[in-house]
Amino acid sequence: MDPNASGLAKRLAEAGQSHLLQFWKELSPEQQSDLTLDMQGMDFQEINGFFEKAGETSSGVSKQDARMEPVPRDVLGSVTRDRDSLKDWEEAGLHCISHSKVAALLLAGGQGTRLGVSYPKGMYDVGLPSHKTLFQIQAERILKLQQLAEQKHKIKCCLPWYIMTSGRTMESTKDYFSRHNYFGLDKNNIIFFQQGMLPAMDYKGKIILENKGKLCMAPDGNGGLYRALGTQGIMEDMERRGVEFIHVYCVDNILVKVADPSFVGFCVKKGADCGAKVVEKTNPTEAVGVVCKVDGLYRVVEYSEITLATAEKRSADGRLMFNAANVANHFFSFSFLRDVVRKYEPELQHHVAQKKIPHVNPEGQQITPDKPNGIKMEKFVFDIFQFAKTFVVYEVLREDEFAPLKNADSQDAKDTPTTARHALMSLHHRWVLNAGGHFIDENGRHVPAIPRDGAAGRFTDDGNRNLKDGTDLPIKCEISPLVSYGGEGLEELVKGREFHPTLTIDGNGVHELVKNGV
Amino acid sequence: MDPNASGLAKRLAEAGQSHLLQFWKELSPEQQSDLTLDMQGMDFQEINGFFEKAGETSSGVSKQDARMEPVPRDVLGSVTRDRDSLKDWEEAGLHCISHSKVAALLLAGGQGTRLGVSYPKGMYDVGLPSHKTLFQIQAERILKLQQLAEQKHKIKCCLPWYIMTSGRTMESTKDYFSRHNYFGLDKNNIIFFQQGMLPAMDYKGKIILENKGKLCMAPDGNGGLYRALGTQGIMEDMERRGVEFIHVYCVDNILVKVADPSFVGFCVKKGADCGAKVVEKTNPTEAVGVVCKVDGLYRVVEYSEITLATAEKRSADGRLMFNAANVANHFFSFSFLRDVVRKYEPELQHHVAQKKIPHVNPEGQQITPDKPNGIKMEKFVFDIFQFAKTFVVYEVLREDEFAPLKNADSQDAKDTPTTARHALMSLHHRWVLNAGGHFIDENGRHVPAIPRDGAAGRFTDDGNRNLKDGTDLPIKCEISPLVSYGGEGLEELVKGREFHPTLTIDGNGVHELVKNGV
Repeated sequence: MDPNASGLAKRLAEAGQSHLLQFWKELSPEQQSDLTLDMQGMDFQEINGFFEKAGETSSGVSKQDARMEPVPRDVLGSVTRDRDSLKDWEEAGLHCISHSKVAALLLAGGQGTRLGVSYPKGMYDVGLPSHKTLFQIQAERILKLQQLAEQKHKIKCCLPWYIMTSGRTMESTKDYFSRHNYFGLDKNNIIFFQQGMLPAMDYKGKIILENKGKLCMAPDGNGGLYRALGTQGIMEDMERRGVEFIHVYCVDNILVKVADPSFVGFCVKKGADCGAKVVEKTNPTEAVGVVCKVDGLYRVVEYSEITLATAEKRSADGRLMFNAANVANHFFSFSFLRDVVRKYEPELQHHVAQKKIPHVNPEGQQITPDKPNGIKMEKFVFDIFQFAKTFVVYEVLREDEFAPLKNADSQDAKDTPTTARHALMSLHHRWVLNAGGHFIDENGRHVPAIPRDGAAGRFTDDGNRNLKDGTDLPIKCEISPLVSYGGEGLEELVKGREFHPTLTIDGNGVHELVKNGV
Repeated sequence: MDPNASGLAKRLAEAGQSHLLQFWKELSPEQQSDLTLDMQGMDFQEINGFFEKAGETSSGVSKQDARMEPVPRDVLGSVTRDRDSLKDWEEAGLHCISHSKVAALLLAGGQGTRLGVSYPKGMYDVGLPSHKTLFQIQAERILKLQQLAEQKHKIKCCLPWYIMTSGRTMESTKDYFSRHNYFGLDKNNIIFFQQGMLPAMDYKGKIILENKGKLCMAPDGNGGLYRALGTQGIMEDMERRGVEFIHVYCVDNILVKVADPSFVGFCVKKGADCGAKVVEKTNPTEAVGVVCKVDGLYRVVEYSEITLATAEKRSADGRLMFNAANVANHFFSFSFLRDVVRKYEPELQHHVAQKKIPHVNPEGQQITPDKPNGIKMEKFVFDIFQFAKTFVVYEVLREDEFAPLKNADSQDAKDTPTTARHALMSLHHRWVLNAGGHFIDENGRHVPAIPRDGAAGRFTDDGNRNLKDGTDLPIKCEISPLVSYGGEGLEELVKGREFHPTLTIDGNGVHELVKNGV
């Protein structure tokens, strides 16, 4: 369709984006149709407004250091410091779950680009004995949690699972779940919805053409969640189901306790409308954002925003003052989330990320820049903390709950399939030990609780065996989420028993895989 | 020489070790002479005694858990919790150094086997811009510390450096220092001595023949230090020099603060005869030994000796109860060390390490076993903590002081040349920032204090930029120990200045290496 006839040309002209039609006449009818389709739903005035507003922030960014305050102790719950309350919190959370008041909300827009795969990250198999993917692990945790709540409270319950994908990952994600029969969950309780996209822009606010017939589009950040919740009827769905509390999390953390009853229970008991799960940051230069107060409001301050002096500040107890590392695990009450979607989301400014963006230049040449030439605009899921009336923080153990999958295996990389796999097996190994099981090696000897690789035959000349070793691989051990959500219920299976790794425990029983090298 | 004539055969027979001569007649005269030489100085009765005594311990090993107590707060000094005292401690240490009362003692017996090199570990170059080896870095720290003490107290001082090698590394170590002119130190103040060796034995107490003409020998552990101090006149040398305090450390820690004045000063002010530097253990399953009390006596309990339940125990403040991770950095008073050498060392039992030991069997065949077939006997340097009358513990920051070099670079390995290099450059980067310098990137923009790799052009689809990233490489920055021992004295060089990495600061000034890719 002719852009002049449709009014598109006029809209573009009014928004100063006419250059998007520069190559119109060179395009095939099919390309013209695709480009028109892409632009039809776009509100260019709104996008220009985002750009202007984002520019205001980014030019006004200054170090927050002087205004930062740590999380006060009274809004903090800690699995290590509040052990006496843990059981109460967990029970409160399970009670909510049993009454179908809790939903899980998964941010799964990411593609596995840095992992080197082209499919959604949740479909990644890190190489566990079971070869389960991140999606399957999470699905089974939800299934188990429903069972635990039902067993405890003797009522049937449902824990709906909202899954936000991006435009790029929606089809493959839905298809994957369908092919795997929703991993045993009721398909009516898995609700897919789609994150918005925004065009990349150059420094003057002109939308960038990826090629002559295609705009350069990117997801609008995980904070695009709030807009998507509104535009796609998700809030209505939640209301209809009677969802009161929502656990929001990212797809890439293999240890994530989906709808963690302790976290939910803590937040509910504290009367919080918004809560963040954190782990302790112990190294000042670790590249994590920290939850803190700035000018009296809660927010996540990113590692790039603070000075070293602030990062190194310590409390009287010797711990880092700003040590509440964000792990993208949040709690929201339904009413808070509704207010966010209705009232606060439009107030949020986009964050600007400078990027090297391949594009076609006005002369029609394809350019691959070697320095940043434009921006992406994103909102972050934690941008709304500032609107909370009762904000709480829940501190958990990194080794129990946080092992994100970000990069492909390679020498220098952190957060790889190997580290994720090891983190999960180490946790399950500890579950077995704490339930009274033991592991033995090929000679029938007990393996120490803190493992080191079996390459024991080598002489080490320096005798420094007390120091950290490079080969302390975990015992190979995997327990299906269908058997245990958080380590519970294992005593009857393992207590007093001896196992050769690889040990796997699933719905069909307890298996040792390596006997005779099988 | 005929073993019968020399009495060797008789001594072997009396000790039940006659099998060592089984292949005598097959040996060439030269081989016979070598074997005789090896055995001449050996006290077989004593070795048999070691074996019996070591066996008693190892069969009697049981979990210490029930008897373990954490280090009490009143014997603990902490750089994070006792900030007000740090300056006093450092001054006390510098005062001792300026009066030539302090010596450094390096445990450098290790070969770089796991690093994949055949020379002493101290000669390893981890790939810093300067390409300095571990030995050179340590030598220069000693030189600088002498200067600092002299400047402060206006008297000439000397900090003797005792270097324990093994039989295998003595010649190459001495040769290396000589070729490099002792890195500017006075050669008379570097004293090399040699760790003892012990034969490997099979499970029946028979010494193992590596081949027909050679015993299987291994160093007797870093605790062999105490015997070597006695047999090689080192205690007399220390006494002659008036050494009162000794800092003992391992060669492989690139961040080691040799003769650390704060540590020395803390121990001296506490009136300690023995002290251990530790870092906080934060993950229960980290494979490190921890300093604690067992039956009221201080010792290092290795990670393989405790149950998971004990490793996971926490204090009311949420920290691990047993969190004082040993980093092989010890303080001894001269008088304590003398008592150890004279009285206590012989009481120490050897630890037994089961090993796969290649050997010749009675049929004369070379065997490479695939499971452990014998033992090595070792003492550990920390075995003597139990004899201390006033034992103290000094807690420092891992990121500032502990980055051991153990393994070659490879995908899964920890403690590699890369991690060591990064740790040092990260520390020096922080020194520059804390002294008021800044780093800028190729576009002239300030680099954030907490760095992330410059691969900023890539789209990350998930917006999780607040989470730990795989590519947070340190800024390339190296400061010569001759310029700064612990971060001091840098303000005049860097304050208010902007640098492009790679930045190096040495005696010749401040250099930026990467301009124009040079």
